[in-house]
Amino acid sequence: MTEIQAPPLTAPRYGVHSEVGRLRTVLTCAPGLAHHRLTPSNCHDLLFDDVMWVENAQRDHAGFVSLMRERGIEVLELHSLLAEVLALPHARAWLLDRKITPAEVGLGLAADIRAYLDQMDSLELARHLIGGLSTHDLPHEISPPGFLLVREESGMRDYLLPPLPNTLFTRDTTSWVYGGVTLNPLYWQARHAETLLMKAVYAFHPDFGDAVNVWWGDPELPNGLATLEGGDVMPIGGGTVVIGMSERSSRQAITQLAMELFIREGADRVIVAKMPRLRSAMHLDTVFTMADRDLCTVFPGIIDEIETFTIREAPAPVFLDVRREERPFVDVVADALGVDMRVIATGGDRYASERQQWDSGNNLLALEPGVVVAYDRNTHTNEELRAAGVEVLEIVGAELGRGRGGAHCMTQPLLREA
Amino acid sequence: MTEIQAPPLTAPRYGVHSEVGRLRTVLTCAPGLAHHRLTPSNCHDLLFDDVMWVENAQRDHAGFVSLMRERGIEVLELHSLLAEVLALPHARAWLLDRKITPAEVGLGLAADIRAYLDQMDSLELARHLIGGLSTHDLPHEISPPGFLLVREESGMRDYLLPPLPNTLFTRDTTSWVYGGVTLNPLYWQARHAETLLMKAVYAFHPDFGDAVNVWWGDPELPNGLATLEGGDVMPIGGGTVVIGMSERSSRQAITQLAMELFIREGADRVIVAKMPRLRSAMHLDTVFTMADRDLCTVFPGIIDEIETFTIREAPAPVFLDVRREERPFVDVVADALGVDMRVIATGGDRYASERQQWDSGNNLLALEPGVVVAYDRNTHTNEELRAAGVEVLEIVGAELGRGRGGAHCMTQPLLREA
Amino acid sequence: MTEIQAPPLTAPRYGVHSEVGRLRTVLTCAPGLAHHRLTPSNCHDLLFDDVMWVENAQRDHAGFVSLMRERGIEVLELHSLLAEVLALPHARAWLLDRKITPAEVGLGLAADIRAYLDQMDSLELARHLIGGLSTHDLPHEISPPGFLLVREESGMRDYLLPPLPNTLFTRDTTSWVYGGVTLNPLYWQARHAETLLMKAVYAFHPDFGDAVNVWWGDPELPNGLATLEGGDVMPIGGGTVVIGMSERSSRQAITQLAMELFIREGADRVIVAKMPRLRSAMHLDTVFTMADRDLCTVFPGIIDEIETFTIREAPAPVFLDVRREERPFVDVVADALGVDMRVIATGGDRYASERQQWDSGNNLLALEPGVVVAYDRNTHTNEELRAAGVEVLEIVGAELGRGRGGAHCMTQPLLREA
Amino acid sequence: MTEIQAPPLTAPRYGVHSEVGRLRTVLTCAPGLAHHRLTPSNCHDLLFDDVMWVENAQRDHAGFVSLMRERGIEVLELHSLLAEVLALPHARAWLLDRKITPAEVGLGLAADIRAYLDQMDSLELARHLIGGLSTHDLPHEISPPGFLLVREESGMRDYLLPPLPNTLFTRDTTSWVYGGVTLNPLYWQARHAETLLMKAVYAFHPDFGDAVNVWWGDPELPNGLATLEGGDVMPIGGGTVVIGMSERSSRQAITQLAMELFIREGADRVIVAKMPRLRSAMHLDTVFTMADRDLCTVFPGIIDEIETFTIREAPAPVFLDVRREERPFVDVVADALGVDMRVIATGGDRYASERQQWDSGNNLLALEPGVVVAYDRNTHTNEELRAAGVEVLEIVGAELGRGRGGAHCMTQPLLREA
Repeated sequence: MTEIQAPPLTAPRYGVHSEVGRLRTVLTCAPGLAHHRLTPSNCHDLLFDDVMWVENAQRDHAGFVSLMRERGIEVLELHSLLAEVLALPHARAWLLDRKITPAEVGLGLAADIRAYLDQMDSLELARHLIGGLSTHDLPHEISPPGFLLVREESGMRDYLLPPLPNTLFTRDTTSWVYGGVTLNPLYWQARHAETLLMKAVYAFHPDFGDAVNVWWGDPELPNGLATLEGGDVMPIGGGTVVIGMSERSSRQAITQLAMELFIREGADRVIVAKMPRLRSAMHLDTVFTMADRDLCTVFPGIIDEIETFTIREAPAPVFLDVRREERPFVDVVADALGVDMRVIATGGDRYASERQQWDSGNNLLALEPGVVVAYDRNTHTNEELRAAGVEVLEIVGAELGRGRGGAHCMTQPLLREA
Repeated sequence: MTEIQAPPLTAPRYGVHSEVGRLRTVLTCAPGLAHHRLTPSNCHDLLFDDVMWVENAQRDHAGFVSLMRERGIEVLELHSLLAEVLALPHARAWLLDRKITPAEVGLGLAADIRAYLDQMDSLELARHLIGGLSTHDLPHEISPPGFLLVREESGMRDYLLPPLPNTLFTRDTTSWVYGGVTLNPLYWQARHAETLLMKAVYAFHPDFGDAVNVWWGDPELPNGLATLEGGDVMPIGGGTVVIGMSERSSRQAITQLAMELFIREGADRVIVAKMPRLRSAMHLDTVFTMADRDLCTVFPGIIDEIETFTIREAPAPVFLDVRREERPFVDVVADALGVDMRVIATGGDRYASERQQWDSGNNLLALEPGVVVAYDRNTHTNEELRAAGVEVLEIVGAELGRGRGGAHCMTQPLLREA
Repeated sequence: MTEIQAPPLTAPRYGVHSEVGRLRTVLTCAPGLAHHRLTPSNCHDLLFDDVMWVENAQRDHAGFVSLMRERGIEVLELHSLLAEVLALPHARAWLLDRKITPAEVGLGLAADIRAYLDQMDSLELARHLIGGLSTHDLPHEISPPGFLLVREESGMRDYLLPPLPNTLFTRDTTSWVYGGVTLNPLYWQARHAETLLMKAVYAFHPDFGDAVNVWWGDPELPNGLATLEGGDVMPIGGGTVVIGMSERSSRQAITQLAMELFIREGADRVIVAKMPRLRSAMHLDTVFTMADRDLCTVFPGIIDEIETFTIREAPAPVFLDVRREERPFVDVVADALGVDMRVIATGGDRYASERQQWDSGNNLLALEPGVVVAYDRNTHTNEELRAAGVEVLEIVGAELGRGRGGAHCMTQPLLREA
Repeated sequence: MTEIQAPPLTAPRYGVHSEVGRLRTVLTCAPGLAHHRLTPSNCHDLLFDDVMWVENAQRDHAGFVSLMRERGIEVLELHSLLAEVLALPHARAWLLDRKITPAEVGLGLAADIRAYLDQMDSLELARHLIGGLSTHDLPHEISPPGFLLVREESGMRDYLLPPLPNTLFTRDTTSWVYGGVTLNPLYWQARHAETLLMKAVYAFHPDFGDAVNVWWGDPELPNGLATLEGGDVMPIGGGTVVIGMSERSSRQAITQLAMELFIREGADRVIVAKMPRLRSAMHLDTVFTMADRDLCTVFPGIIDEIETFTIREAPAPVFLDVRREERPFVDVVADALGVDMRVIATGGDRYASERQQWDSGNNLLALEPGVVVAYDRNTHTNEELRAAGVEVLEIVGAELGRGRGGAHCMTQPLLREA
């Protein structure tokens, strides 16, 4: 295996070199205005199974953040980052020029809405770019002619700006893969607008600006059938990236990303986990995450149905060498890592096992080798992890879990050691 | 209005004479084995929107029970009552004769299962009659020939005994209406088996036996299209019963019950609230409950669509006099009670209001006039209730609320003052 | 194998002794009033995928009937049979006593509706017992008090009598098995009322009355979880019955029926085909029917997933001997028949094959060995049958097929040779 | 009202100046390969309610085309037009460059697929651009490495080229409005690829090329939330355009189109019909079409819920003047046309009316004033139209109607007189 070098353009500051190495910096997004918009009649369109008690979700999310900070991890928060970006006049203009268009908010509204947003302070503007803008949010004196056509129902399309409650899952929108990042074209319409916000952060925020190496993806260009979500992307180390090919991450995206990684020497092997199409297996990280260098949790019912492929670079004109792996997925990953992998299946009897997978029991975030964050409600799985010597830090999942994502989904590592 | 007399057969001990009078005795059912059976793939068939963390649900339910006991209310629990019934050999035989039949558990299994249950202690047997019996619950040495035909999937029909997680909602299965009770034919197949358990309790438990006046309903007889659920039945006082005519409570049931009440002098007026057919308005008590003699909470979006009728006794051969009420539902109820009704709509903005109704914000249980139990998560509605002078006792709803029922749904008053 | 004798009580006139022997007498039910009630908003509740052009469905059904009559088959029609039954005063009273009850039509309506139906002529009454009765069907002068509570929506529950469009599928409601018949408890609520009509026909019609041997089933008794539909029941000959264990036919029913057949010497072996639970595989006859003594059509995708069991009589106290068959389903059937079975899979490429199964391509009715009726739209399958020497008589399926049933589903053989 | 002049760039050959004027030229698309791909498991994703018998659908569509040709109407067919375009090397290259990209068909496949398509004759290529390309369509010797990642299921995303069965409804993809055309961004993902094909036809076909005036829309640019479907667009004459604001046609699109029409003097008034969001009311032309200068058919249940607005040009910086109309939708349209509108509601009783709307009973295509094409199955509505003096030409809808579109949906007028 060739040694992978961070390409010269990469900012030295960020990079994710494994799934379980020491976590240094991580991006999160606190629950907020967008979740106040969730109702029983719109939550399914917004990809939530149920409404949340937002105040408690915020409390539990803050507990999660504190827990990471106590461990010395730098935790960034999307509302804050975005506000800092919006404080820069050229960045604010760049983003609003792209968001407040006739095609997005409607002709006859765009000018008035832009004017209203232009006078907003940066934090409030960030709050609305993530949380959405409804007609009820506007002062009464703003009443452009196009208002008459806005529906007063709770459907998503009729917000002036749509709420983006799934920003909670920072894992999906962008993915750090070794020394660079992808700006992911997300599968569902309800999440499309998230990626542009992240592009603004990476492009303009002083901590990132000009120095971020983007492997692939641009929310300003059409993406065809190429869709990718970060819950499927795992740079496990050693120049290998594991990518789930799921309902949400398509072969069109995976092959393009593989090519970019190979050409620009970001990685030299992509292991594709071709998953069955099930809501309960929407991302690879809902059925497989790593807890230690040689320890993973899996949900056997689905993991056993995965077909595994390896993609490597090939000479022109073929470029990609795709091979079917004969051995089970976990064995292929273990081999790539050069370890004897211990496997902890979702715990409990067959009822409990199915429930714990659903409740993100497999969705662990490793803070360092052998130290993971998990939801408290997955009692069986957590117990088995502890019996295997893992330190399990529990966070409260009663509200946060209603979007079907755990600690892994709610974090995007920016800096993680090998 | 004629004075309603408790009919001579009624046990003096029990009777529910209002919705807000001092509550003396109440029946509940703690979460348990049945909820451990819920999985993401079967919970919808079992009428739950999501799986529960059962241990926490039990903790929160115990908190609810304690809170009532601290107020001097006698709280009965269904598992205990049923176990006491099953300790009586003739009662145990009566119930198992009706439950363990070839039509219910399958020929080639019935004898072995009956033998297995016969040797079980009463509490364990009660646990399985409520929580269900799966093949995995049986010792390996029990393996009758019919076993081969039992499916190993998680679907409901293939339990040896079906789990009954909705017994949590004791409100629905039977309804005390002044001096007697109804044994309700429930709408969904998944709940049909609940009523027979309650019949056994009322028939054999020493606290009830021989002395309970049953107005209507018998789970051993076919019910046709007559279905009734207690969440729609409210004996508001003064000989009037309010009944929601919903997806689950049919006119066939309501008219039969009305006739029995009139003939046997259990009540002299039935107010029918004909509701729109919506999942979010499954029972009247999900959109309307009373908090004080002259104070109710309502969810306006649905309450405004209710059509109201009054049924009174009529001379033969017509028997029932049905009239459409011209005034709004709440006004009709207020008039029947002879009060000026104060109305608290589900609180918060239009998002919060829809969410709080969903989260059982209107589903209050009055312990006495002006003292109610409500879920903690309905912060807006609870605040408005307090502003109106109501004492709101909060219980934790994060897990319990996932079956879409609140404090009103989870209780069946047995003794409540006028 | 012991020779099976028709039990002494059986009417000599009827009996079904194979799936492909010469068909002598068959029961059908023409499309009619019930199908005029189907609308896009209620058809799914009534188990139809789409609405029908009733006049054309009637024309195509008449073509089907003519085709059978031209072949010398006696074709009975349910509306006619039922009208003949209703012409007998005691039979009319028996049936209306059971149909027009407070639990079915509502108190405050039952008397007036009964009076209205009592004065109806027999054919018109049969038409409404099958086609349903809505408030719009009544003369204006009939307006009992209970009317106010009837919903004016198109939902099923609010008919005064529910429409029964699935009587079109006479196969399911009762099943002739050698010398006797079963009165099947059907799975879906929307079909429950069909069986009582058939009981009236068998009990009172002069062609049947007093002489029909009923193996099992009584629509007047509770059936628990025992449900059976005739599309799953195939008396293939030689004392063997093949029964699909499907979503709709439960092990509780199959084992009870097996016991009755064994004890009363109606059959000596039941082959159970345990099917996957899929809408497209609702009955065994949607994926498997016989076209000749040694020729069947199958839909491979589902047939391959069938688990096969044999039930035979066992000595008391076990009664049933259930064994898992190791060989594929079709081989087990072939063996039971003592033939070398030729198999025709649903024809065409993988798209066409899936479509033709859906369009009842496997749902053949054999008129005699090697002569079958099939829908015209299953061009590929029909072609392959012809290539195998089968005479395929085509009927038009454009409208009739919208309830997802073919020639097999639309017929109940009453007399068929071995 | 100002006189609307065709703008100078417009080809004099085409233009649609009313909904009922004499039809001269019309575009259709025959059923074909794409409909052979429909199966019960994928048809809903492809927006069809059921599978079709394609051969019969083709026969019925050919009957429809003949009927128009017999009336002297020039009928163009999309497969033919597209084949003529693909015969031009630069046009073929332009289209394949845009279709066969890594983002659409996958890297590691694009080159081989392009080579395979490049050698195809034009008609065959048109057939696959509309009907899709699956791995089964390719010769065995073509087997690039990316093939291993293609799923073998019947889901849409895994075609090499997706089938486009909704091209059958040429009405939606582009809309002629007086002297120009719109290239519509369609709502559902399953239809997005249709518009690029039409752009190629308008841009390169010798009958259109260089001379078509495009008002709005470009399938090569992102469209944000602006979606428009031609079933909602009706240039009723006199410079007025009626546009349904439906689930599929958004205010973002309508206002942009209105602005373009006003600025470029294509129209001077847009009447917006804001419709309820229902599957059965997906386009305005499913509930309202015109049959004569002063005669329309409507489905009352939905038409009565329409809110009506008028948009006219306004001075900068507002540009659009939007006003709510107080009168019912049909009255506003009648006024705009200066006629006394006769209205024919969907015929029959309440059951038949709902069914006939579903079966496209309101979806008439006028060939000239008072002469319309309709499905045969809408017997009641057709009868009432005839009673009103309309000549109704019937086409067979048994198969064609399964995509929920009628004669109006299946045609895009290119030249129609005022």
